[in-house]
Amino acid sequence: MNAEKAERNEEEERLYRIRHSLAHVMAQAVLQVRPNAKLAFGPPIDNGFYYDFDLEEPLSSDDLSDIEERMRGIIKERQQFENIMRPAEEAIAFLEEHGEKYKVEYVKELIQGGESEIGFYRNGPFEDMCRGPHVEHTGQLPAKAFALDSIAGAYWRGDEKREQLTRIYGFAFEDKKALKAYQEMRRLAKERDHRKLGNELDLFTISDSVGPGLVLWMPNGTVIRDALEDFAKETEFKAGYQRVVTPHITKENLYLRSGHLPFYKDSMFPPMQLGDEEPYYLKPMNCPHHHMIYAARQHSYRDLPIRLAEYGTCYRYEDSGSLAGLLRVRALSMNDAHIYCRPDQLREEFRAVLDMHEYYYNKFRLSDFSMRLSLHDEVNKDKYVDNPEAWTYSENVIREVLDEMGTRYEEVEGEAAFYGPKVDFQVRNVVGREETASTNQLDFAMPERFDLTFVGEDGKEHRPYIIHRAPLGTHERFIAFLIEHFGGAFPTWMAPLQTRLIPVSEKFLDYAEKIKAELENKLIRVDIDRSDESFNKKIRKAVTSKIPNMLILGANEVENDTVTWRRYCVKEQRTLLRAEYAAHLQAMISARTMDNFADEELPEI
Amino acid sequence: MNAEKAERNEEEERLYRIRHSLAHVMAQAVLQVRPNAKLAFGPPIDNGFYYDFDLEEPLSSDDLSDIEERMRGIIKERQQFENIMRPAEEAIAFLEEHGEKYKVEYVKELIQGGESEIGFYRNGPFEDMCRGPHVEHTGQLPAKAFALDSIAGAYWRGDEKREQLTRIYGFAFEDKKALKAYQEMRRLAKERDHRKLGNELDLFTISDSVGPGLVLWMPNGTVIRDALEDFAKETEFKAGYQRVVTPHITKENLYLRSGHLPFYKDSMFPPMQLGDEEPYYLKPMNCPHHHMIYAARQHSYRDLPIRLAEYGTCYRYEDSGSLAGLLRVRALSMNDAHIYCRPDQLREEFRAVLDMHEYYYNKFRLSDFSMRLSLHDEVNKDKYVDNPEAWTYSENVIREVLDEMGTRYEEVEGEAAFYGPKVDFQVRNVVGREETASTNQLDFAMPERFDLTFVGEDGKEHRPYIIHRAPLGTHERFIAFLIEHFGGAFPTWMAPLQTRLIPVSEKFLDYAEKIKAELENKLIRVDIDRSDESFNKKIRKAVTSKIPNMLILGANEVENDTVTWRRYCVKEQRTLLRAEYAAHLQAMISARTMDNFADEELPEI
Repeated sequence: MNAEKAERNEEEERLYRIRHSLAHVMAQAVLQVRPNAKLAFGPPIDNGFYYDFDLEEPLSSDDLSDIEERMRGIIKERQQFENIMRPAEEAIAFLEEHGEKYKVEYVKELIQGGESEIGFYRNGPFEDMCRGPHVEHTGQLPAKAFALDSIAGAYWRGDEKREQLTRIYGFAFEDKKALKAYQEMRRLAKERDHRKLGNELDLFTISDSVGPGLVLWMPNGTVIRDALEDFAKETEFKAGYQRVVTPHITKENLYLRSGHLPFYKDSMFPPMQLGDEEPYYLKPMNCPHHHMIYAARQHSYRDLPIRLAEYGTCYRYEDSGSLAGLLRVRALSMNDAHIYCRPDQLREEFRAVLDMHEYYYNKFRLSDFSMRLSLHDEVNKDKYVDNPEAWTYSENVIREVLDEMGTRYEEVEGEAAFYGPKVDFQVRNVVGREETASTNQLDFAMPERFDLTFVGEDGKEHRPYIIHRAPLGTHERFIAFLIEHFGGAFPTWMAPLQTRLIPVSEKFLDYAEKIKAELENKLIRVDIDRSDESFNKKIRKAVTSKIPNMLILGANEVENDTVTWRRYCVKEQRTLLRAEYAAHLQAMISARTMDNFADEELPEI
Repeated sequence: MNAEKAERNEEEERLYRIRHSLAHVMAQAVLQVRPNAKLAFGPPIDNGFYYDFDLEEPLSSDDLSDIEERMRGIIKERQQFENIMRPAEEAIAFLEEHGEKYKVEYVKELIQGGESEIGFYRNGPFEDMCRGPHVEHTGQLPAKAFALDSIAGAYWRGDEKREQLTRIYGFAFEDKKALKAYQEMRRLAKERDHRKLGNELDLFTISDSVGPGLVLWMPNGTVIRDALEDFAKETEFKAGYQRVVTPHITKENLYLRSGHLPFYKDSMFPPMQLGDEEPYYLKPMNCPHHHMIYAARQHSYRDLPIRLAEYGTCYRYEDSGSLAGLLRVRALSMNDAHIYCRPDQLREEFRAVLDMHEYYYNKFRLSDFSMRLSLHDEVNKDKYVDNPEAWTYSENVIREVLDEMGTRYEEVEGEAAFYGPKVDFQVRNVVGREETASTNQLDFAMPERFDLTFVGEDGKEHRPYIIHRAPLGTHERFIAFLIEHFGGAFPTWMAPLQTRLIPVSEKFLDYAEKIKAELENKLIRVDIDRSDESFNKKIRKAVTSKIPNMLILGANEVENDTVTWRRYCVKEQRTLLRAEYAAHLQAMISARTMDNFADEELPEI
């Protein structure tokens, strides 16, 4: 584990130097074509680097390949990187002499901050104020593994009241293969952007009149939500969960008791004042409501575990500027559940929860996931509930479960919640988006605060443990994630439209109507392309709409009572009896096949 | 119709006199046993009458039969009712002489209000300030069709700061049969009170910490909600509806546009102020959100009708004193939908909506329903949207549809919404509770306000009509209504627990476990009575819990791979193969049989 980590760190360090050095090389190249350019900042970033310039004569994306060529030339020259330290006043004089007003402004701030020496790096004819580090010489830079990507506007220091600059972005990796893979993923990510697809496929809309971050789910998106929710409901039913429904608002005291108020107040919607009643709040999480259901009845040790599940809607106050599509919203419906169990049931329950995560992610073909175990920190006792016994017990339980499962995980000390350790699931989809899909918290503090008890075999009251879990996260984020992962092509069981009927000509419309009625009666979502467009255009339209199944209906089909079935992701088509098709589709839906992947095996009927 | 109405009014008038006179007769009888009693008010009410007394020596329910007997004696005496008018001052003197301080207080108010003469009624030795009317003599009162019901505390004039009085309630009808029927219904209603059953069957709870009128649906209640919602979803899918999901909050402008603000403000929750953004409100209805979904896309005449459905949760501010179980709540989930259609589709759409109501009510065996058509009023033009053509058109459409259906309905002028005519469904359940189950509104004003359009065949923009409908009302009220209607015994498809397994002894637990796993795998809700109670006690417990199906498992069953099936509402039991039972149950669930009624035919398998 640690060797792996060290290797990762070394690779990161290497990439940092490469990207940082490429930023300097790019600036040198830009100065070749725009000698009066003034330099602002030019840092390495996650996928490469950028540099901001103040230009008298603009550059356009057409100029990028020329700049790239010049960069390759500089790389060939194997210019040495050399670190030069200048006393503060000398540094300013040097920069003023070169007219670098942005750097001068920044260096003056550094000096005010107490710096007495300023670092510079020189390579060939180029010199830049910079802390480094860099590669040894430009010959170490990968001439084929970088690419300039785009030009964008930017403000000096991100302040829209200051000068507008030109930012050039570049990608950079260790080798050509990594660059190509990244570019392909990026192309895919753009093509699959959930806002773009959400709009094209009519999944959701956000209305200015209703408010930012408040998603209106259109009929197509609602089908996907409902399919996901039904799947969760069935999975949870089989795992012994019970569903509850709780109101979205509550009196203030509930959050004072849970500790959300006043500490979490900034993330909550402001209170509503009803006459002289206690203020009411929109709920930022479902836990306290579930605890109230648990507390409404007395429980015996025989009744435990009690697993209360709900797609509960929570409200979080996010700055309107930070809201983005489904990824950051103000109202979110969470695949939430709370498991109330005895200490001796903790291990089995926690294991079952983690197994359910694996089951879901495998189902959705999200094979790239890992876990992170957050532990408390024995030094920082104030940060955590004072219950050493419970900490030791619960951390050991989780660690044992994780080891037993053999899944990849890392441990982090000092990252636990104040009321117990937690396990995060980190999932990555095909376009490379990483998501903390779910946080599983083990909780021994809330039972105390809410005075939750069960009557033990000894006839006395005991405290249950609580597991908080939400393997599918929120509808909003998880569906955004799936839209990208599937490229908008949902499997039949989730697809807004499960079958499109394409009559080869108007003559076969009656036959199509008959099939439509039959399938609808089986609760299958189906429509008919009644347009007078060409057959090929109809097919193309169905493919663009990513409809998982098309039935082509012509003279042959009518005569033999058959349909010709063509799937979205498979080239071959097959002709089969009408009733057979319905049976196939029903089997696929009830087995929830991932038939949007070409290699998925369909159930036999 | 009018003759029927006149007859109803005559009957009501007769009952009013009877009940009013019986109140006087009761007061006379009470004065026989408590000569110092002071009289407060004693009006006729819906099911009889009451009288409030200020007593020096209390009465208890044990005294009621004695008072009843005395009342019968007074009835036998055929005392004449005689109206006496006294000038104001004389009336006060008379009442003061008799020490009737409550009446004195009231008469003084009447005088201040401008009355110069006060009416009294005398029968036999009893005289009471009273406006009448009464029967001619006590011999006209039905000696066998009244009964004293209960004694309760009451405050003088309902003011808890004033004197506490003793109120005696009596029932009274025209004949003994009507009284008995009413008493039976009342007994049933008490036994079936949704709060009592809701508690006994663990359906829902309301927590002081969360707030009044905010229902927490426990697992059993959630099953019922979900079953109802799935039923609506399936019914609506087959009728061409599409589901949407909308946020529970919105910016203020949406309600300014719809006209809910400022007029409806008192019924809304107060606003939330987020920084310097527009205020946000919890939604009091779903319409504007659905309109925003409609407006998010352009629609062609070919796309219409568009039917958007949602179990949307709304929030209404109700005074905390007026909240009652599920019947009056602050957060309610409504079986809502809005149909956007062309004028030429209005008739067919409205008919389909009314047909769906009939379908639902028949399904739930709510055969006692009627409709009420509310029309606009040509005189009161200010009250209504000025669009005579639309009024005439839409009122005619509805009237034609109603006539065509042949269902009982009455027309009321001047009761329409300001934006269009409406049809209310009035439903009555077996315990006699009447409920306006649904209001169907035809709307030609909101399309204007929200600028909703479709592109017609002529290529121009037109306004759609909107139908607002909610045949199942809200989860809260409809489930309360069903709890009473079913007496808590839900049909298998809605029942929280669908099958209880009762092993005759511990020896058969393994067999029970096997069956449980099999049924759960088919998503059937099942449990095992594992207690060591006697067999008969187990059966009684299952019956008290109103579980629709019990399986009795003994030696015979294990040997033959059978189960002995006993239903909640049918005496006979039958033994059948395990797999047969599962098939039966699945067929009952998917057909949604009302197997909680003994005469329901079960599907063949």
